[in-house]
Amino acid sequence: LSIAKGARIGARCQIAATAIIYDNVILGDDCIVEDFVVLGHAARRALNRDHLSIGNGAIIRSHSVLYEGSTFGRSLQVGHGSLLREGIEAGVNLQVGSMNALEGDASFGDWVRLHSNVHISKGTKIGDLVWIFPYVVTTNDPLPPSGMCVGVTIEDGAVVCTSSVILPGKTLGTGAFVGAMSRVSADVPAGGLYIGNPGKLIGPVTKLRHLESDKQHPWYNHHRDAYPVEAHARIAEIAAIVEEACKNL
Amino acid sequence: LSIAKGARIGARCQIAATAIIYDNVILGDDCIVEDFVVLGHAARRALNRDHLSIGNGAIIRSHSVLYEGSTFGRSLQVGHGSLLREGIEAGVNLQVGSMNALEGDASFGDWVRLHSNVHISKGTKIGDLVWIFPYVVTTNDPLPPSGMCVGVTIEDGAVVCTSSVILPGKTLGTGAFVGAMSRVSADVPAGGLYIGNPGKLIGPVTKLRHLESDKQHPWYNHHRDAYPVEAHARIAEIAAIVEEACKNL
Amino acid sequence: LSIAKGARIGARCQIAATAIIYDNVILGDDCIVEDFVVLGHAARRALNRDHLSIGNGAIIRSHSVLYEGSTFGRSLQVGHGSLLREGIEAGVNLQVGSMNALEGDASFGDWVRLHSNVHISKGTKIGDLVWIFPYVVTTNDPLPPSGMCVGVTIEDGAVVCTSSVILPGKTLGTGAFVGAMSRVSADVPAGGLYIGNPGKLIGPVTKLRHLESDKQHPWYNHHRDAYPVEAHARIAEIAAIVEEACKNL
Repeated sequence: LSIAKGARIGARCQIAATAIIYDNVILGDDCIVEDFVVLGHAARRALNRDHLSIGNGAIIRSHSVLYEGSTFGRSLQVGHGSLLREGIEAGVNLQVGSMNALEGDASFGDWVRLHSNVHISKGTKIGDLVWIFPYVVTTNDPLPPSGMCVGVTIEDGAVVCTSSVILPGKTLGTGAFVGAMSRVSADVPAGGLYIGNPGKLIGPVTKLRHLESDKQHPWYNHHRDAYPVEAHARIAEIAAIVEEACKNL
Repeated sequence: LSIAKGARIGARCQIAATAIIYDNVILGDDCIVEDFVVLGHAARRALNRDHLSIGNGAIIRSHSVLYEGSTFGRSLQVGHGSLLREGIEAGVNLQVGSMNALEGDASFGDWVRLHSNVHISKGTKIGDLVWIFPYVVTTNDPLPPSGMCVGVTIEDGAVVCTSSVILPGKTLGTGAFVGAMSRVSADVPAGGLYIGNPGKLIGPVTKLRHLESDKQHPWYNHHRDAYPVEAHARIAEIAAIVEEACKNL
Repeated sequence: LSIAKGARIGARCQIAATAIIYDNVILGDDCIVEDFVVLGHAARRALNRDHLSIGNGAIIRSHSVLYEGSTFGRSLQVGHGSLLREGIEAGVNLQVGSMNALEGDASFGDWVRLHSNVHISKGTKIGDLVWIFPYVVTTNDPLPPSGMCVGVTIEDGAVVCTSSVILPGKTLGTGAFVGAMSRVSADVPAGGLYIGNPGKLIGPVTKLRHLESDKQHPWYNHHRDAYPVEAHARIAEIAAIVEEACKNL
């Protein structure tokens, strides 16, 4: 078992024999760490070695790598083969799918969901209850390559559909929705529906409706039960903001 | 060697010392399993533990993970770092490139080819002799996030070029061709050529012709020899359907 | 330690206990090889076993796989979970991010930078000081699937932004710039700025200017210091070519 002596491991954790845990790791209770995982990998820059802190109830699936210098709230889930670099601050129940690249220096609110193959650049700020689908990229360099870092902001309850790119410094407002394969070159207001390449704001998210099921966006009513009960009050707050915002779009 | 006692391993298999094989695995004869592979990973939902069944002559390259509850015909090939989750039914000689994410609950016919980094959502149904290129995504949620699952269908002999997205519930007919970076928001008829974002049907696949080589689509004549001889009769059947369909486009 | 006896390992290398190094590997001095890496993996085609040659000062991060039959100059860097197949010739200080798929039979000049999740097809030729961002794909099949291989050429100092696709056989001239999510279906002249899907040449790269910082493309002046001093003369040469080329666009 490759767990460094200095690592602080909580109670009842299940750690695969092939996982590697460095001595700067603080792992909560009831965590699962699968095969070929690396926890506490050294950051690339010359830092004081810093902790990787993971809350209770985490599941880290096989072949994933989490760097030192990040803090994750309880009930973290990470899929297979994902990379989470240094400088991440995440709330409770962040779910990261497989093969994500979180480049570090980013923040996540509570109950955020990233599907597979999401790329989050340094400087990205993500609120609560955000959903990001596969192959979405948040960028940060306004004149690549320049070394400048102007991060993207994705506010509470926003949704970014598959294979979209958010250009540097853009903000998606509360409950904004970006359609699949969109190139987001402007801020999207709260409750806004944005789509296309080139991208365009085409109205409020209430335009999104599924005829067969009669479900309609914003998603907070019809998909609330996919979240733990403790999230429901926060979902209601966001829903109220988005419903109000939609009236003006 | 990390092979559980209950696993049934065929004759003449070469299994790397670092591979992990759970006891629900049934592996055929003459298979190769490379380093850091996991076979028979538990499914995430509360299932009865189910088998992972892999036919003769499979090659599973390093760092890939195959879940329990799937069945693969003979001559499976899987590249490096791919994820194949539970509930997959695949015919003979499925070739999955590197870093694919097959999310499970999907079906594949015979001789299907997935290049690197293909993302196949739950509910996707794929016929025989289909080709899918890198960074293609099949989606399944018509109002994301909604929890609804309306899968994509890709019929025999269809081709989806790199970085395209197929929207939920859409069908690509027999021998349809989707150009690179297309957003498929409508069904594509058999033999149809579809391209763009927004996407558009622009005629029959016979429009695709390579001047220097004088090769022309459909591909079944000029690329038939890339498949084993046993596939040729099936290729001829598909070719006849597509040629007929092209006349009406 | 899983290092084959025939492998030639330079002085002062740090090789993780879980790394696998085959006997056809020639590793320079002062290299770092992290956990779960495979060096010298057999090529898929029936070749005489060939060497994998890696120069001094390389860093190969965890879970990456490098095939035999490639040669990398000094100061190679490879991120996590990347795949570098056979037949690559690379100059000094190639930096490959995480989860790249370099499909082999490709050439790279000096000081090339590939971010995460770049897909480089066989037949791609890349010059010096090129920058490629996440989810970019260079393709090679003009009539997929055909088995034909017509590679892409990316000349010195060119930049390809995130999620763009370069179609088979296209050339990006010296210092060309391709915007995010572009579909490159034509050659781009030296100093040209190309963007969109469908893609279009819209002028010289000098059109790209960041107002707040007053930085302007070409990038060779404002980002030169991100490269080692030994690269500066080459950067100046490229800058002169691009400045001249921009005058005619």
